[in-house]
Amino acid sequence: MQKPTLDFWFDFASTYSYVAAMRIAQLAGQASVSVRWRPFLLGPIFHAQGMDNSPFNLFPVKGRYMWRDMERLCADIGATFRRPDPFPQNSLMAARVAMVGLQADWGEEFCRRLFRAEFADGHDIGKAETIAAVLIDLGFKPADIVAQAQTDANRALLRTQTDAAAGLHIFGAPTFSTADGEIFWGNDRLEQALAWTKK
Amino acid sequence: MQKPTLDFWFDFASTYSYVAAMRIAQLAGQASVSVRWRPFLLGPIFHAQGMDNSPFNLFPVKGRYMWRDMERLCADIGATFRRPDPFPQNSLMAARVAMVGLQADWGEEFCRRLFRAEFADGHDIGKAETIAAVLIDLGFKPADIVAQAQTDANRALLRTQTDAAAGLHIFGAPTFSTADGEIFWGNDRLEQALAWTKK
Repeated sequence: MQKPTLDFWFDFASTYSYVAAMRIAQLAGQASVSVRWRPFLLGPIFHAQGMDNSPFNLFPVKGRYMWRDMERLCADIGATFRRPDPFPQNSLMAARVAMVGLQADWGEEFCRRLFRAEFADGHDIGKAETIAAVLIDLGFKPADIVAQAQTDANRALLRTQTDAAAGLHIFGAPTFSTADGEIFWGNDRLEQALAWTKK
Repeated sequence: MQKPTLDFWFDFASTYSYVAAMRIAQLAGQASVSVRWRPFLLGPIFHAQGMDNSPFNLFPVKGRYMWRDMERLCADIGATFRRPDPFPQNSLMAARVAMVGLQADWGEEFCRRLFRAEFADGHDIGKAETIAAVLIDLGFKPADIVAQAQTDANRALLRTQTDAAAGLHIFGAPTFSTADGEIFWGNDRLEQALAWTKK
């Protein structure tokens, strides 16, 4: 029998997407749910809501809470957490490379490693060298992969994916979407989304 | 041994505060945690963030999600849910009456009944008749209680409580705060807040 599928929408710049990315493989495995990793860009989504920065920067009291909350959540799951500087980071190239990897078989591992580079190791994913280091660890020549990531076709694919997120009325990350059209927003809704998917 | 205490900050106009109010007594009982119900007003808190309306109205895509989310959450806990009209409702008098009741022994029951009047039965808590009906059900003469609610002392008490929420860097409702200074935002963090309180 085919497993039901849950779509995992995330932006590499998103703090709670990091936590979800660290948790989802194990929880989905336990639930016998397949996960489709779907990177997208929050920038255009926030822009459509009239925001030109992360809500955590626009609303400092919310940002203050988020940083403390991330410390607690990461401690709970045994993940290292270091506050990224700058925040948010430019996640465009990361998302383009992830699109390439997710069409092959190394996408999820790239995503997890890049999230850790950013949120555990303190690297800036907006810099080519951070992405290159992860690609080298995975056994690739960075220039080859980056060339694939920069093709018109791949750029268009990422734009289409971001448009698809907007079409699902996604407004933040992470968001989980189901085949029957439900969306669940936030790392803390991962369990609920998996339960819904199994229904 | 004295039970540890968790503060439950809520606004009667807040949808997720309704869900938390329906859940908290049972969960806190199971966790052997005392709950202090602390009504406050979100209006001044939102205003300080530059918002003059509910974020669910200011950001329609977020509002759209919230209404669907409320349907799902209430179905999960077996609570009726009806979308309030208008939204958000004026919760000033409700909060003042709750302050009176929480200094006596009928505050929590008043809060639960008023939340149900608003979110299950479709009454407008901004209208005196809605609050009066709940007070009558509890065996009071509404005019007596409303007079107590409208004293300068009681108005000041509610203002002080809203200031205290701001002082804890609370930016939304419901929020749970612990004796050691942690805050947990959102109905979906109730379990986490209770676990922290027991540590």
